[in-house]
Amino acid sequence: MYITDEFVDRLIKEDVPYLDLTTHILDIGNCSGIMQFYSREQAVLCGTEEVLKVFKKLDVQVTHYLPSGTLLEPDSIFLEAEGSAENLHLAWKVSLNILENCSGIATRTRRMLILARTRNDSINLVATRKIFPGTKELAVKALLTGGGYPHRLGLSETVLVFKQHINFLGGLDNFITGLDLIKAKACEKKVIIETDNLPDALKLCAAGVDGIQFDKVPYKDLNEYVEKIKGINPTVVLLAAGGINESNVEDYAGTGVDAIVTTSVYFGKPVDMGVKILKTDLV
Amino acid sequence: MYITDEFVDRLIKEDVPYLDLTTHILDIGNCSGIMQFYSREQAVLCGTEEVLKVFKKLDVQVTHYLPSGTLLEPDSIFLEAEGSAENLHLAWKVSLNILENCSGIATRTRRMLILARTRNDSINLVATRKIFPGTKELAVKALLTGGGYPHRLGLSETVLVFKQHINFLGGLDNFITGLDLIKAKACEKKVIIETDNLPDALKLCAAGVDGIQFDKVPYKDLNEYVEKIKGINPTVVLLAAGGINESNVEDYAGTGVDAIVTTSVYFGKPVDMGVKILKTDLV
Amino acid sequence: MYITDEFVDRLIKEDVPYLDLTTHILDIGNCSGIMQFYSREQAVLCGTEEVLKVFKKLDVQVTHYLPSGTLLEPDSIFLEAEGSAENLHLAWKVSLNILENCSGIATRTRRMLILARTRNDSINLVATRKIFPGTKELAVKALLTGGGYPHRLGLSETVLVFKQHINFLGGLDNFITGLDLIKAKACEKKVIIETDNLPDALKLCAAGVDGIQFDKVPYKDLNEYVEKIKGINPTVVLLAAGGINESNVEDYAGTGVDAIVTTSVYFGKPVDMGVKILKTDLV
Amino acid sequence: MYITDEFVDRLIKEDVPYLDLTTHILDIGNCSGIMQFYSREQAVLCGTEEVLKVFKKLDVQVTHYLPSGTLLEPDSIFLEAEGSAENLHLAWKVSLNILENCSGIATRTRRMLILARTRNDSINLVATRKIFPGTKELAVKALLTGGGYPHRLGLSETVLVFKQHINFLGGLDNFITGLDLIKAKACEKKVIIETDNLPDALKLCAAGVDGIQFDKVPYKDLNEYVEKIKGINPTVVLLAAGGINESNVEDYAGTGVDAIVTTSVYFGKPVDMGVKILKTDLV
Amino acid sequence: MYITDEFVDRLIKEDVPYLDLTTHILDIGNCSGIMQFYSREQAVLCGTEEVLKVFKKLDVQVTHYLPSGTLLEPDSIFLEAEGSAENLHLAWKVSLNILENCSGIATRTRRMLILARTRNDSINLVATRKIFPGTKELAVKALLTGGGYPHRLGLSETVLVFKQHINFLGGLDNFITGLDLIKAKACEKKVIIETDNLPDALKLCAAGVDGIQFDKVPYKDLNEYVEKIKGINPTVVLLAAGGINESNVEDYAGTGVDAIVTTSVYFGKPVDMGVKILKTDLV
Amino acid sequence: MYITDEFVDRLIKEDVPYLDLTTHILDIGNCSGIMQFYSREQAVLCGTEEVLKVFKKLDVQVTHYLPSGTLLEPDSIFLEAEGSAENLHLAWKVSLNILENCSGIATRTRRMLILARTRNDSINLVATRKIFPGTKELAVKALLTGGGYPHRLGLSETVLVFKQHINFLGGLDNFITGLDLIKAKACEKKVIIETDNLPDALKLCAAGVDGIQFDKVPYKDLNEYVEKIKGINPTVVLLAAGGINESNVEDYAGTGVDAIVTTSVYFGKPVDMGVKILKTDLV
Repeated sequence: MYITDEFVDRLIKEDVPYLDLTTHILDIGNCSGIMQFYSREQAVLCGTEEVLKVFKKLDVQVTHYLPSGTLLEPDSIFLEAEGSAENLHLAWKVSLNILENCSGIATRTRRMLILARTRNDSINLVATRKIFPGTKELAVKALLTGGGYPHRLGLSETVLVFKQHINFLGGLDNFITGLDLIKAKACEKKVIIETDNLPDALKLCAAGVDGIQFDKVPYKDLNEYVEKIKGINPTVVLLAAGGINESNVEDYAGTGVDAIVTTSVYFGKPVDMGVKILKTDLV
Repeated sequence: MYITDEFVDRLIKEDVPYLDLTTHILDIGNCSGIMQFYSREQAVLCGTEEVLKVFKKLDVQVTHYLPSGTLLEPDSIFLEAEGSAENLHLAWKVSLNILENCSGIATRTRRMLILARTRNDSINLVATRKIFPGTKELAVKALLTGGGYPHRLGLSETVLVFKQHINFLGGLDNFITGLDLIKAKACEKKVIIETDNLPDALKLCAAGVDGIQFDKVPYKDLNEYVEKIKGINPTVVLLAAGGINESNVEDYAGTGVDAIVTTSVYFGKPVDMGVKILKTDLV
Repeated sequence: MYITDEFVDRLIKEDVPYLDLTTHILDIGNCSGIMQFYSREQAVLCGTEEVLKVFKKLDVQVTHYLPSGTLLEPDSIFLEAEGSAENLHLAWKVSLNILENCSGIATRTRRMLILARTRNDSINLVATRKIFPGTKELAVKALLTGGGYPHRLGLSETVLVFKQHINFLGGLDNFITGLDLIKAKACEKKVIIETDNLPDALKLCAAGVDGIQFDKVPYKDLNEYVEKIKGINPTVVLLAAGGINESNVEDYAGTGVDAIVTTSVYFGKPVDMGVKILKTDLV
Repeated sequence: MYITDEFVDRLIKEDVPYLDLTTHILDIGNCSGIMQFYSREQAVLCGTEEVLKVFKKLDVQVTHYLPSGTLLEPDSIFLEAEGSAENLHLAWKVSLNILENCSGIATRTRRMLILARTRNDSINLVATRKIFPGTKELAVKALLTGGGYPHRLGLSETVLVFKQHINFLGGLDNFITGLDLIKAKACEKKVIIETDNLPDALKLCAAGVDGIQFDKVPYKDLNEYVEKIKGINPTVVLLAAGGINESNVEDYAGTGVDAIVTTSVYFGKPVDMGVKILKTDLV
Repeated sequence: MYITDEFVDRLIKEDVPYLDLTTHILDIGNCSGIMQFYSREQAVLCGTEEVLKVFKKLDVQVTHYLPSGTLLEPDSIFLEAEGSAENLHLAWKVSLNILENCSGIATRTRRMLILARTRNDSINLVATRKIFPGTKELAVKALLTGGGYPHRLGLSETVLVFKQHINFLGGLDNFITGLDLIKAKACEKKVIIETDNLPDALKLCAAGVDGIQFDKVPYKDLNEYVEKIKGINPTVVLLAAGGINESNVEDYAGTGVDAIVTTSVYFGKPVDMGVKILKTDLV
Repeated sequence: MYITDEFVDRLIKEDVPYLDLTTHILDIGNCSGIMQFYSREQAVLCGTEEVLKVFKKLDVQVTHYLPSGTLLEPDSIFLEAEGSAENLHLAWKVSLNILENCSGIATRTRRMLILARTRNDSINLVATRKIFPGTKELAVKALLTGGGYPHRLGLSETVLVFKQHINFLGGLDNFITGLDLIKAKACEKKVIIETDNLPDALKLCAAGVDGIQFDKVPYKDLNEYVEKIKGINPTVVLLAAGGINESNVEDYAGTGVDAIVTTSVYFGKPVDMGVKILKTDLV
């Protein structure tokens, strides 16, 4: 993952357009200090690489850090840095926001993946495009850190047919009629289509689609669907989507699908982290 | 609220770097269609003005919309637009993501504000800087739509003293000694300081600070603190912060503070909305 | 395809950072004029939609245009617009550069595709990532206009294994050993690998890769390779890459591969187009 | 030449919006490797300074490089760097694209200049504004590297009168009438005008223009034109433009013009270069 | 104060879009040189931190510099750097422009502040939003360097009521009626209102505004206004604005207002500075 | 002159990052209003075209405006627009800042040009690169509006030799020795060199430079220098630079130079303009 200077600068400026007025008015900006980050709860750390870029831009010198992916225990310091009081205060909250939010996604992803793999140890967890607009780079980073994959990075690189597309074709049968041509055009891609019922799924598999995404099918029904389809064609990719979260992921993972498609990892509380800033001679 | 062309373009490109490959391969891009947005749950709508900018850039013509701030009932269409199938698919998900996320914040804000005002009808709800990095403009818009205010837009425009600042001054007494000068320098601003205990708060009020932010003080204690301070100086602004959310906002609102400081409105599930896209001649 | 305001502005500013000094010094800027674009050769037109955005930004009013994809005959006007002499001169060359270059790629793509389809009417033409840096959006637009597809939009969305990857795995056999896991991780994607010889290709197909990209294999050899592989597994995708251009595309198309991978459409002469700018009362 | 961080980042992101999915799925990203660039043909190298900026951003350490302007012999390594497999793969293709394309322009420029100077050893080669939109910075760098100059950087800094301007003045005689005033206004610039015939050129020179650009005049005719004009006024600058390329540049250089104006250096095949990426312990 | 890479790059590119043509044509770019900056007049230096970022981007090595805020004596060198002749020429003028303009603002600010403090040693000098568009970051930096503060960073963070707002409320009395609610909504801010007369000011103070900004009130009248208001309520903030500059700031400072609001520091001559560039072996 | 959307947005955001908090808190944003701009002094208007872009972005409808270049009389309204109170307040100050600053430059330019032309009616006024960084586009627009020209847009497009260049050549004689080659390389440009004495100027003219820029030569001396040089070579361009402003421009214009080079037009007080904002039903 590479993030641009412009991106890092944008995040900094979002929080600090000009100065830390408080530090300036207190006239403490030139003091030397140390800043320490720790988590108040167990978490999968994510975002230290990005925070290091924030620090570098703000002349804050890192003295200790753990990489994204580290499993954090409560209260142990995973990131420590030195700099002027002015720069530490400039860096503080944007860094914390990156870490808490990215670690939140990474932690939920890993937790959900672990749950899923209790039932199917090669199952994948893939996350949808339904991010908070403006957060895709950090969201993708956190998702990968947690062990998941992007379901689609965007509209331009995959063939995923929704009923919103089918409506323009005049129905599923027209899609099936044209499928060979579609597959030829998209020969380097898998052609995947979303449905919510078994008859359509069977018809589509027979016609040769590469994958089926089941939307909001109860997991008990899905058990049956997967068994029937894999019995006929074990290579077709089967995905379960729609309302899957930590509370039901095991059940869905047990259906035999190849991957769970979820949005739930993107939302929820950030990891609760704390920051200490101390004057150097007090350390 | 004004959002820039660059911002709107960035959100579009985040989801659609080039084309909707699926629409292109299905060869349906030039069909005419209609797109309808509805909510599956009650919500405070937010983001239609921003989505109208997305639509305009993508040559999608709006035919009906409700403004941010509207209270949505389930299943009624609040936004409808026409365009080519290509453009509708380009606009679909980024628009939905804006609407679901902004409406989520606006809804949580209004809900929390209503709860708070059951106990204090002039109390304010102000939200911290702890956003998901990259979302500040949408977050501020949603917060205002829900009836809240930004606690601080960033570091540059308010004087809010944390213990992380006090550490560099060598302790609270030094801050108090310098307070007159600080107030003179910041004469157009209120000088607000965070503390978690009554003795410090009383000392600070006696010294002349304009406001106290109480961090993580249990509401029962806070009741007493507020009563004592307001008894001495009714004009000092008192804020309650730290772990306040829908579950306890009423209790905190009942303490007599002027405003509740919260992060909780920013996080949680987006509003569940749906989108129909239909071929025009089928409508 | 959506291009951003920033992108259009960047192209304009690249050619006109401030003013047309010549027009300014001649003091003709406020005259009304008409501008007409025509091709001096047969071509597949591409870029008018983007040029319309240039015109709009420069207050030039389009009075006639043909869409991207139109087959142009020499000397017929495909784009006509009105505006002040100042604005017409600002718009002239950047518009011409877009049209000539995009049409060049679209024309070469369509020509090459037609040649390929004389031998295999469902074959695809896909173009590599080897663009002139800075031109990807226009290049993709032109490629699609000509009937081709991007082979890969970038590194982030496909699994294409080169020997540069294999080197880090310690050889092909290690890749094959891990293939089931790789396929599980990438279950929504086709796993494609590049090779230049039949034995490796056969081994890889037996192991279950979704596709083989043959690099710089003479077409006569490729005939044999394709026949053998498709005989064993007709669903594996076969691609021919490396030095394929208009002079040999028919031969490669005749081998039975599913798609031709090429860079050659991106390079070559722009289409030769002319622009007339006339004072309105002279038209 | 200075290129901005934003520009370098844009080129990187164009090729790698998020990650190298292949490297990630193969789980080889943390291996150490070495990357070597070589040319498969003789060429004037261009773009290493820019690639070094790519490397720096991607934490790739350069261990050897030759500067832009170096004459490359086939197969010798001109650029070598070390880094993690992840970063090497992120850097690979964008770097190669910069190098191949810039070196292509530089090589064609130098080749054409050498040809021109066989006939006139002080002649200049200047390249038009007809670039592929989005490539001006790299194109100018490559042009300078090859020994050429920009004819015009854009519209804002030179006075070059085309018939498209004259049309608004109501004809060449009106231009001549106003020439003294034009020259006074543009006193720091040369006033150059394009024509395709001798009578107009003579009239313009007599009137005092600083330069004539001959458009698409056959070189045999141009011989005569130049001789006549230089006989009358040796200080007027004479330029030959329109369809000049490697095949006829010597003939045009022999006419006695001061500079050749060409677009042909911008287009053509990139230099064919190769990249090896090896695991460090295998080197 | 943090300035972004994009900002620094924008300033560089504004002056040097591609190359220093003169240096290139003279073929001196690779010589080593030294560049020295000095002031021709006494001044408060401002902008060296920003110029160091310019230097870093252009590979110019700083060998000596004084920080912003230093009082410069004429002709002593405050900044010295080494680099290639090409890079020194690229850096020269943009650096000089930053230094001369920022130091001009800082110098005028400090001069005006010193004058004001001869009459009131705790008075503040705050500068309006009336900058030259595009210069806010440098203007704020220079203002702070000189000892002033921004009156408002922009519209989004302060409550400052002008008659242009009051017009929409239907008059001042309506504002006063609603003031308690306004103050509750803005409880973390001071509510300040502009007026030009004493009766309104008294009415507003009685109603509870936090501050009054007097616009274009002659200082003799203002003496009286301040005395009356402070006599009634010593905590209300009083500001003097409108036409205050070096010539009359002492008089206004003597009125007893808490701060002087001015635009005049932003405009005026830049500090006159000189730059020497020498070939290294001549130093 | 074309300004980009990004540029207009940047100026808006500089003043209004999110909202007008005052308008929001007063709850007047949805009222309809009218906004009128007038000048309090005679001035050359500049910037209305740019302000119209601001208005368009903020949904403010222009109902009357005068173009850049208009001579304004005091107190007459030159720009009037309608919109919501929210949008009018967002647009107010950034628009005023553009107009006051640009009109200031345009007015000073025209005033100085008129003074110069009392002595030489074909003399040019050209302004240096010494702008406030970040203002070049507006500065160039204003300069052109006032009747001046940019001396140089930047470093990349002119050949202007300073002693800072000569130092690297080892002295003026080396420059003269190489001048024929320099002129050949720069054949489309005038080669201009700065000096401050007659002997060097004469030597340079004899050697064939196209122009001399005299730096800080007293106008009485310059009279003599110009006479001597023009007597020898009437076509060489002569420029007077260094400390020329409204107080001495007539004297310098009387010397016979072709153009006056100045920085003084860029600095000075903005034009004093006023803005009325009224509720629509009160108009």
